[in-house]
Formats: sequence, structure tokens, C-alpha cells
Amino acid sequence: MALETEAGELQVKRVTVKNAKGATDDCLAVEEPLEIRVVRQVEGEIEEQSVSITMRTPGHDFELAVGFLHGEGLLSGPSDLQSLTPVLPERPGCNVVRVVLSANAAFDPEILSRHFYTTSSCGVCGKASLEALQDLDTSEIEDCRPAVKSELLHSLPAALRSAQSIFELTGGLHAAGLFAPQGDLVCVREDVGRHNAVDKVIGHELLQGRLPLLDSVLVVSGRTSFEILQKALAAGIPFVAAVSAPSSLAVEVAQQFGMTLVGFMRGQNFNIYSDAGRIR
Amino acid sequence: MALETEAGELQVKRVTVKNAKGATDDCLAVEEPLEIRVVRQVEGEIEEQSVSITMRTPGHDFELAVGFLHGEGLLSGPSDLQSLTPVLPERPGCNVVRVVLSANAAFDPEILSRHFYTTSSCGVCGKASLEALQDLDTSEIEDCRPAVKSELLHSLPAALRSAQSIFELTGGLHAAGLFAPQGDLVCVREDVGRHNAVDKVIGHELLQGRLPLLDSVLVVSGRTSFEILQKALAAGIPFVAAVSAPSSLAVEVAQQFGMTLVGFMRGQNFNIYSDAGRIR
Repeated sequence: MALETEAGELQVKRVTVKNAKGATDDCLAVEEPLEIRVVRQVEGEIEEQSVSITMRTPGHDFELAVGFLHGEGLLSGPSDLQSLTPVLPERPGCNVVRVVLSANAAFDPEILSRHFYTTSSCGVCGKASLEALQDLDTSEIEDCRPAVKSELLHSLPAALRSAQSIFELTGGLHAAGLFAPQGDLVCVREDVGRHNAVDKVIGHELLQGRLPLLDSVLVVSGRTSFEILQKALAAGIPFVAAVSAPSSLAVEVAQQFGMTLVGFMRGQNFNIYSDAGRIR
Repeated sequence: MALETEAGELQVKRVTVKNAKGATDDCLAVEEPLEIRVVRQVEGEIEEQSVSITMRTPGHDFELAVGFLHGEGLLSGPSDLQSLTPVLPERPGCNVVRVVLSANAAFDPEILSRHFYTTSSCGVCGKASLEALQDLDTSEIEDCRPAVKSELLHSLPAALRSAQSIFELTGGLHAAGLFAPQGDLVCVREDVGRHNAVDKVIGHELLQGRLPLLDSVLVVSGRTSFEILQKALAAGIPFVAAVSAPSSLAVEVAQQFGMTLVGFMRGQNFNIYSDAGRIR
């Protein structure tokens, strides 16, 4: 697979603000749209399709694109990829990534228009959202039991924070970090959108050929929602730990699929919402 | 316009969690999908169209639906509405709202498929996102100068927090509050999604026939993004104040359209990112 170079550095923008001290300099997290296009061969013809436009912090855009596609069930691994290219290489600020699929990729564009949140029995509901996840291959997650010490969990929010390069400057970025069960940091990414930070981490690991991420802990800087758990589940991550609260549906996903979900990591305490058996 | 009754109370879900104290009760913010459908007459035929499925905290769903449609430029005011009904009134948990438009509503479904983030000169970029907002009628915002005292601004985060009914229980909800320039609270709404909380506030005001909200201050509990500013701008709100950081594009929207944007409201301090002239 050919990967063109992309800037790995996140962008910040310097502005002058007024506050009680007068005028001071401040750094902002950059927010810009990114369009993700998928290119594939359909009956001998090249077909290019725009699948998403999302607001994100520029940097690690290839990872974001493949992580997003993986979470949506549109991409299974590096062998599905032929190349990743910006659409306008001469204009690096112009935010389009083209994901060119290999001939044998099993890409199903109907997934994009399907309504995951609907069942015939109940209409639109949380139960239907859970049922839609049954299509994922999650058989290994429940049996995968990375053992994580309580003391290590206490230290992970600080470890995540110290690995964030931009947050200290801007105060305006979510972070997601992948850790080994013994605490080694595997990958950390930041973004104005918390889902994007998770997509970038999972996209990075996918491009390294390391999915499913069965022996790892995903730490997020904020709250956990259905979508965060969905992305972790799709990537095979059995353990999600968050600094803040989970939603009801995040807890239901974790309980249904045998994932460990921890929240409210504050000092020497945290809450375990699902499967305490992986915590020593 | 006929409005069916909806439950105004947000839902919480009680669970038992494990932590350092053993097993304790905890409350979760409920997260469930909501589908928004628009019903209208097209050449004498009734046409029903699904325009969005979003994850939200149940409660104030009609407000969320009309606030969302307004922010997208699909609905201008109460006269566009004939009725709002849940699709399955016998199943209140089944999350679909049907927005029935009046015959004279100027609904443009093409807006849904149009790419706002693209220009011919530059492709997808933040500049194009800003240019797309030029279609909004924002002529009155720049000239509207509600005067807000610094001391009042210092008090607004606490006022918002004390008006949040569910946050204290769950720690897991974003809030948006609309205040008069003298500090009176007009409307507060909570949601697992920060955009939804803003949609609910604006939807509430739209249903009361009070748009544009020229003489008001929108306070949000978290960060400000392009979309939060876009929604405020569409509703005619000239003043947005946030507890946390803005993104670069949020600041650019505020500066371009003469809105006041405040962030990092902490104790006796805050940062002014755009148009300090409304602050006394």
C-alpha cells in the first residue's frame, strides 16, 4: 500500500484575546472540514463516492479516514487499501482524503444509506442500535481478558494528558489513547471531536495491521457514548476507560458484548460499569 | 399549530457500579436515537422524508426536531409548521418525530444533499464553511448590541449549572441556556450531545415565536465549535459565552458576523475572542 506523506503535527492558531489581564495571546485548536472519498472499481469502471464530511482538527487525516470507515463497517483491514491520497496534493490545506480500495475489498456502499437504529418490531430505539452491532465479528472480545491493575488505572488519565501535545496549549481538544495492559502507551491522538480522536487511534493501528486490538485499553479524555463503544467494539478493544461519565447506551453496549467500561477516573477512584473481572 | 403532549422530563437510568467504596448506585444520562421526519405536500401528494437520525437524551424532542431543522436552514418559523407528532403515539419510547409542514412552508430538501463545505476556488475548507453562512439572514446581528456586565458574565456558569436538573445526578450532560442581557434565565436544556442542547433551546424559542433572539446571550457548558456558532447565528443570537475553549472556526464565525464570543469562563475571568463592545 502506498502512503503519501502527511503532516503529522496538529495545527494551532494563535489569536489575541482580551481578559482581566488586558490583551494576551491564546492558542486555538484548529477546526476544519474533512471530506472522505472512497474510490473503487465497479464492473471495470472507476467509481468515486463522497462518504462523509466531518469537522476535525487537521493532522493524521489518513488515520481518521480509515478509522472512520472501519468503525462504520466499510473497511476491514490494510489489505482492503490500495492507496491513500489527498485529492489536491498541491493544496495541503484543502481537506479531502481519497481512500482507494484494492480490487478484492468487500466494500458495501449500502451500509451508508441503511438505518442502523431501526427494527421492524420497535421502530427506532436503543435496543435496535444494539442489535445492529450483532453484525460485527466480536466473538473474541468476551474471552480476551487483559488484566489491568487498579493502581495502573489511577495513573492513566495523567499519562494521557501528558502525552497530549496540543491540549496544554489550547485547552480545546479531546484525546484518545491506546495503552497496553501493563501501561505502555501505544498511540495517542487529539481532535476537536472526541469521535475523531478515537478514529485516528484505531486508524493508526489498522494501518499498522494490528487489528483486532484484543490486548489493549482505550482511554478517552471525556465522556463515553454509544458511538465510542461501537468504534472500540468494531476494533476488538475489550477495555474502555473514560475520565467522565458514560451514557446509558454506552453501558448497555459494554454489558452486552462483555467489554469492561470504567468512568469517572478521579484520583484514586473510578466507577466500573461493566465486567470488573479484568481489573486486579 | 397542534402540539401533542410530550414528556418534558429528561430520563435517567439507575445502575449499580463498583468503585473504591464497594457497590453503589449511580445515575446515567439516557442516550437513545431520534429520527426526524418531515412531511409535506408536493404537487398534491403527501411526501414523508427522513432527514436525520441523531443520538440524544429523550425529552423535549419536538424542540430538538424544530431547532435542528432551523439550524440547517430547513425551517424558518412556527408558520412553517402544521403539526408535530410522534410517529407511534402508543409507543412513547420509540423515538420518531414527524414534523408536518404547512402548505406555504418554503422547505428546500436539496439543502440536505448540498455540500456546504465546498467552494470551486478552494475545495473543502473552513473558508467555504464560512461562506456558506452568507445565505443566512444575519443583517440584524451586528447592529444588535445587548449590553452585558462583566460581573454578570462571571455568574452565568453557576446560574446555568444550578438550572440543570439532571447534570448533578449524572455528571454526563451538556447544557445550553438562554439568558436575557440582565441575567434572567429564559430557557435551559440538557442533552448527551452539546449540539442537541442548543437545538432544544432554539427550538423552544422558535415554537414560542420568539426568533430572532437578538436580545439574548447563549451560554454553553462546554466548548464551542463551528456548528454551535452556526446554530446561534441562524437564530439571531449575537452573544455566545462558553465555559471552555472555542475552536478556530468558532472564533472566525463570530468575528465575521459581528458576534461576541467569550470562552474559558472561570471564576472572575474569561477570554473575549470577538467583539468586546457588548461587554460593560
